[in-house]
Amino acid sequence: MAYELFDWPTIQGRGEFVRLALEEAAAAYTDVARHDLGAMMGLLEDPALARPSFAAPFLRDGEVLIGQSAAILFYLGPRLGLVPEREADRFWIHQIQLTIADMVSEAHDTHHPIAIGLAYEEQKTEALRRAGHFRRDRIPEFFAWFEHILARNGGRHLVGEAITYADLSLFQLVDGLLCAFPMATAAALADNPGLRALHESVRQRPRIAAYLVSLRRLPFNEQGIFRRYPELDG
Amino acid sequence: MAYELFDWPTIQGRGEFVRLALEEAAAAYTDVARHDLGAMMGLLEDPALARPSFAAPFLRDGEVLIGQSAAILFYLGPRLGLVPEREADRFWIHQIQLTIADMVSEAHDTHHPIAIGLAYEEQKTEALRRAGHFRRDRIPEFFAWFEHILARNGGRHLVGEAITYADLSLFQLVDGLLCAFPMATAAALADNPGLRALHESVRQRPRIAAYLVSLRRLPFNEQGIFRRYPELDG
Repeated sequence: MAYELFDWPTIQGRGEFVRLALEEAAAAYTDVARHDLGAMMGLLEDPALARPSFAAPFLRDGEVLIGQSAAILFYLGPRLGLVPEREADRFWIHQIQLTIADMVSEAHDTHHPIAIGLAYEEQKTEALRRAGHFRRDRIPEFFAWFEHILARNGGRHLVGEAITYADLSLFQLVDGLLCAFPMATAAALADNPGLRALHESVRQRPRIAAYLVSLRRLPFNEQGIFRRYPELDG
Repeated sequence: MAYELFDWPTIQGRGEFVRLALEEAAAAYTDVARHDLGAMMGLLEDPALARPSFAAPFLRDGEVLIGQSAAILFYLGPRLGLVPEREADRFWIHQIQLTIADMVSEAHDTHHPIAIGLAYEEQKTEALRRAGHFRRDRIPEFFAWFEHILARNGGRHLVGEAITYADLSLFQLVDGLLCAFPMATAAALADNPGLRALHESVRQRPRIAAYLVSLRRLPFNEQGIFRRYPELDG
């Protein structure tokens, strides 16, 4: 049976990290909310559901319903052939994924430093200040760590000899940052050539390249995590 | 061999979620950085280390080095007898843990909405604004979800019939919020009696109660995640 992915239908969102894994594995899946938002809202709000997710995205695999993008990927990794066999490797990949997720949250909060319930325009002053620190301090710190662990693994992949979902997620993080902070990210990639090469090599993988030009790949926009507000790029 | 936990030595930090699990299981462990901070800094900064953590806390179990508190607990859960057997249950507990971690990050950012590299006093104006939204919107939203999943499982535990590390972590989250936002948290607990009862029942577990009055339990302070700044409680 096809996996069912549930995420907000008009943005890439955190579901994009899951989508890239499903696409790379050529797995059968349905992006449910894109044609039936009510089905997703029902699962988020159904008071009879014993194990609802706090938020989208979440995945249904037959009887299993699982939320939190990093947990979804930990679950899918072995099923999609996107992790090695050893338990220690799988935990290391998960640890990397959670660190990617931390940076995703920080990137999000550059345009929403005060409250997710407010519009960007209502917190723009604070956003300008937060984005400056993010560009100057956090992008270099996170990128240096990614560069280091890439280099220590030989440079082609984050873990082991083959692609894992962490490589795909790191591609998405860099891609989003290139959209949101093109100048700051290009400068940081110049200092971290291994990371730049990984972003490029994932982008050129046949299934990923085909996905990126398909209608299933929504463009970055000003509702999602990674938003292009030129004033935040300094 | 004893587990070795590495975390900042003067605060509870995110290591506290791991510490509570180790204490409840009466596991042998060393809180390394409390007597040897250099050992922790060495592991964070050693350029020869192939799999360094981006940040503390992390855990060493023989050959395995693992960071990110939620990943550490996913790893320790079966080893400490703090999760059921079924894979679906273990993923559900992990999903809850990641949602707890999301709320922990939001609680942290109430006093650091702009940059972790700045002092609270340098971002106090923004903190006042963020804390207001956190109190009014986010505490009720997260608490309602915890209350719902507790009730759907019978009220005594989050998952299954016995204590899991998610119950311990939820205790710690509520405990930290009671320190940081005593008025707002008390009001929210009055609306969510199951959550209040869980906090109390974990606090009274013999090993947890003994731990909480031991010297190993550091007090909340103004360097940690949960800080008592009265002005942020409205």
